[in-house]
Amino acid sequence: MIKIVTAQLDIIPGNIRKNWENIEKEITFAREQKAQILVFPEMCLSGYLIGDMWDQPAFLRECEAYNQRIIDASSNLTIIWGNVAIDWEKTGNDGRVRKYNAAFAAFNKKLIPPVNSNWPYTVKTLLPNYRQFDDPRYFTSMAELAAENHASIESTLQPFELPLPYTRETLTCGILLCEDSWDENYPIHPMEILKDKEARLFINLSASPFTLRKNEKRHRMLSASVQKLHVPMLYVNQRGMQNNGKDCYIFDGQSAAYTISGELSGETAPFTEAHSLFLFHPETGHLSISNQTSLPAAPTLCSAMQYGVASFLRSIHMDKVVIGVSGGIDSAVNAALYRSVLPKDNLLLVNTPTRFNSETTKGLARQLAENLECPYVSIPIGNFVQDTCSALNNLPIASSHGETALQLTPFMMENIQARDRSSRILAALSAQFHGIFTCNANKTELSIGYGTLYGDLAGAFAATADLWKYQIYQLGHELNDWFGREVIPEAIFTIKPSAELSDNQAVDKGLGDPLIYEYHDYLLKSFIEPWNRACPEDLLRWYKEGTLNEHIGTSVDAYSLFPTPSAFIADLERWWNLFSGFAVAKRIQAPPLLAISRRSYGYDLREAQMSPYYTDAYLKLKQEILGK
Amino acid sequence: MIKIVTAQLDIIPGNIRKNWENIEKEITFAREQKAQILVFPEMCLSGYLIGDMWDQPAFLRECEAYNQRIIDASSNLTIIWGNVAIDWEKTGNDGRVRKYNAAFAAFNKKLIPPVNSNWPYTVKTLLPNYRQFDDPRYFTSMAELAAENHASIESTLQPFELPLPYTRETLTCGILLCEDSWDENYPIHPMEILKDKEARLFINLSASPFTLRKNEKRHRMLSASVQKLHVPMLYVNQRGMQNNGKDCYIFDGQSAAYTISGELSGETAPFTEAHSLFLFHPETGHLSISNQTSLPAAPTLCSAMQYGVASFLRSIHMDKVVIGVSGGIDSAVNAALYRSVLPKDNLLLVNTPTRFNSETTKGLARQLAENLECPYVSIPIGNFVQDTCSALNNLPIASSHGETALQLTPFMMENIQARDRSSRILAALSAQFHGIFTCNANKTELSIGYGTLYGDLAGAFAATADLWKYQIYQLGHELNDWFGREVIPEAIFTIKPSAELSDNQAVDKGLGDPLIYEYHDYLLKSFIEPWNRACPEDLLRWYKEGTLNEHIGTSVDAYSLFPTPSAFIADLERWWNLFSGFAVAKRIQAPPLLAISRRSYGYDLREAQMSPYYTDAYLKLKQEILGK
Repeated sequence: MIKIVTAQLDIIPGNIRKNWENIEKEITFAREQKAQILVFPEMCLSGYLIGDMWDQPAFLRECEAYNQRIIDASSNLTIIWGNVAIDWEKTGNDGRVRKYNAAFAAFNKKLIPPVNSNWPYTVKTLLPNYRQFDDPRYFTSMAELAAENHASIESTLQPFELPLPYTRETLTCGILLCEDSWDENYPIHPMEILKDKEARLFINLSASPFTLRKNEKRHRMLSASVQKLHVPMLYVNQRGMQNNGKDCYIFDGQSAAYTISGELSGETAPFTEAHSLFLFHPETGHLSISNQTSLPAAPTLCSAMQYGVASFLRSIHMDKVVIGVSGGIDSAVNAALYRSVLPKDNLLLVNTPTRFNSETTKGLARQLAENLECPYVSIPIGNFVQDTCSALNNLPIASSHGETALQLTPFMMENIQARDRSSRILAALSAQFHGIFTCNANKTELSIGYGTLYGDLAGAFAATADLWKYQIYQLGHELNDWFGREVIPEAIFTIKPSAELSDNQAVDKGLGDPLIYEYHDYLLKSFIEPWNRACPEDLLRWYKEGTLNEHIGTSVDAYSLFPTPSAFIADLERWWNLFSGFAVAKRIQAPPLLAISRRSYGYDLREAQMSPYYTDAYLKLKQEILGK
Repeated sequence: MIKIVTAQLDIIPGNIRKNWENIEKEITFAREQKAQILVFPEMCLSGYLIGDMWDQPAFLRECEAYNQRIIDASSNLTIIWGNVAIDWEKTGNDGRVRKYNAAFAAFNKKLIPPVNSNWPYTVKTLLPNYRQFDDPRYFTSMAELAAENHASIESTLQPFELPLPYTRETLTCGILLCEDSWDENYPIHPMEILKDKEARLFINLSASPFTLRKNEKRHRMLSASVQKLHVPMLYVNQRGMQNNGKDCYIFDGQSAAYTISGELSGETAPFTEAHSLFLFHPETGHLSISNQTSLPAAPTLCSAMQYGVASFLRSIHMDKVVIGVSGGIDSAVNAALYRSVLPKDNLLLVNTPTRFNSETTKGLARQLAENLECPYVSIPIGNFVQDTCSALNNLPIASSHGETALQLTPFMMENIQARDRSSRILAALSAQFHGIFTCNANKTELSIGYGTLYGDLAGAFAATADLWKYQIYQLGHELNDWFGREVIPEAIFTIKPSAELSDNQAVDKGLGDPLIYEYHDYLLKSFIEPWNRACPEDLLRWYKEGTLNEHIGTSVDAYSLFPTPSAFIADLERWWNLFSGFAVAKRIQAPPLLAISRRSYGYDLREAQMSPYYTDAYLKLKQEILGK
């Protein structure tokens, strides 16, 4: 039996010194456990999402210096870890110094190179280059190394023969880096290559961002792989939060054991466990977690969001939060979410009503604050907004054609209200409160730019901006369950969603947002989340075929919502024009968000500011349908 | 003599239909010229910077449909063009349908495949993956194709034998796509391969974004290549503007001829020429532009900025602009820049003084507007700001510890002023004026976050945000030259730069920004622009060695600015902390900018929000120097 400790390090991106401190602690722990092998995740010194910090040579030198510290700490313990490896003599395709996303093994203060390898470490073979991933931007792959040496990848990629302390034995182990085990779309299959070289255990070092339902896919995929190859696998992931600017990702730290039968035989709890002791029986291939009787529950939407919000605040060294609460669902869910990870006095809830805000929602905002036991203020902004409107409406402008007066329309006055709330009140209050203020946007709004720049789209963090409206409600219910009581009043779930910026949005008259969320959530989702993204051409074809509901996954009947084809088309074009038009400009200036879906706005979905486009096939279909 | 027309298409990204219309016009023009070959640039139907639009299958089908239209239009004319090629049977590494960045040739309504090729087109071999470039995210390279077929790139990459209408001859031509000719850092050298296959002319189809001095590098590089290989080259670039969200790039459309002696023998004028007639003498290898007696002048900073601003406005279908003018240099340069591309009545200049704004700057703002003959309004904001401060200062908050009062500091009041200007006044006025409002930030400010989110960092476009402060002055002088008179008053160049947000920033007392621009421009530049970016460790080492001035390129003596090492270190850490700390958060929400430098913020420099880091080597050096 081999004792393997995995350290699901809580990585601080870019902070090598701090990550080393935690590595050192885990080395001490592993020794105490008399572990033979200690495994750290991919890029455990630098962090994985650090942007273009890779082109600072001083940072690279620091990565190398601390790499040596890990080697020096390997007395009587085999340590495996991920770090950048640098070949100062060679360059990458960008002309900068050559870097590899590498895995190292050390024992008794010496590196253990892979068997028959030209390099003292192994190199990530498959470099992901989709969604938020940019590995080939920075790193040279094992496949490129093989090609450069006119060698096959089969002869280049090698397993490690790991010394087993307290014995005279070794273990032949295939060490993989994250994507190396997600090989279904690549021409190269690293696990197959390593299996053919007698690997008796795969260890995958990962920095795999959490998104909803991704672990289910991983379990399916890795189970199938180990079953097929008859080699068990130990998967080790990071914890913590890292970001690429626009998108903040959490890492679940769910290390896992897969046996040769394809069974998930052990898994660490999400977000919480710094380290775990796995037991491996080389003779049977059995791999499990010590003392684990049942698998932990998968993260819920609520637990993932809580971890995300807490991690983000920690990452920016802030623990005080100002939240504008309108009495609607989005701000209520944000308030409850932050409250679930912060002491009550660290929140300041602010209601900023005008005459358009109903007594209903004002009352609900106050009720929410009382339920959450948070400081609460109401600052009516009607007079300020009125003063601004009076000052600007009919403003005379002298041009070469004579004097004209600039009119303010009701729509412009709505935006003035929204900006007054955020840029005047919340921004100032957050500074006074020594905290941040939140952006409470959801993904539905962000998709179509239903929000005001420098208004409700402002804030330091948009925790819920990757959640569709239906997920906002789901999170609200999960939060009430978490609190064990109705902190978000039931009426907030049932009231008509509304911006309450004009008489046309009066909730008490059942007026509100121009969206039928039960349908539009799914329509908009089809624009962004499927691997092959839908365009109006696809949607209109499905509509014509009668398959629209199934294709987009809505449970309401689109055909009864839009009694005529022309109503369907007008609605489709309205939202497509916004989605691919002005909403892009708004998203460029939107706050960072907590990425949780299979495709989030920001660095995951990369967007250019362009004009909406309709294909010829769409225009033809439209003409056929409308009979013009 | 072979007549070749190049079309420097003004590409509208994502608008295939519109690009086709322009292609059709150029085909007509080429026929009128009795040209034998017509060359379009890389990705001439789709545009090059279109973000993740590549994962919309409907868009790909549209690219294919219009590709056929070009083929069908090739009667008696050999047409060469760049477009995406799709292999619907295969997938890329992301599992999506396989796409190539390809070059096509057609004659008499049929594709002309490369000689001895498995494919009816050629495929880009070198896919750039640095700065703003993401080619491998979308496209499979010729090198990957070769590897997949277990063939060498040498046997895979093939030239075209192009029919020459009006003759029975053909021309063996190596067609390259952009980066294929920028091969200095790659292990593969496409031009050498094609030269060995008897190519008598290289034609490079490009979508190469303009940045300052990049063309000089291109001339050096391509001259050296053609001289070495003894094959002349025709280089064809796009015109127009494309963006990736945060960064807007202009394309200069400077097509060029390089003879075998390495001479730049012909070049089209920047930004303006839709098409040009080149003459190629295959017997001598001579290549030139018809009727060109001298090379055009290179773009100036001013002409590039004017093209950028005009193109951006056109791209968002806006032609009216509101500019906040303070009387300082940044807003003055922006006002003159926009005025140089817009009719006078399409600008609205707005001064929004408080008691901190001097008569000097208020007068200069008014003078500027008079010089530019633009509509101008002054809207004092002091009372509004005072009302906000009165409402928020000492705001009582009831927490579980009792009641506390939230204080407003003078610094918070500065930010309130800045937000009041932009989010309250300019945002509303721009809507009333049916236009946008500008962000007048410069790169120095953006580097350290010296600006207020939702305040002076707001706006639809930050035209000058990729210019260091010294370049802002340069652009100002170039604009006055362009106007042929001092539209920007001389005093605006000489006044102390200041935000005028407090008594500590009184320009008439010589008080202002906390930066010594002559030094800090270059310090901050070293953090971002060199290919190997500098860190405090490098800067402190240079300081100690006495080589700091040369390394960062400042003309002022850093050693006399900072009389003691500890003063130097305090200054260095102050700006590094901002640059790599809070300024990143501000940049994430900053407006799109006009990218013009060798490294711009946004999608070119990808940044994660992290805490500032100092390497061990820095800390050690600091300790040595400070003797502690």
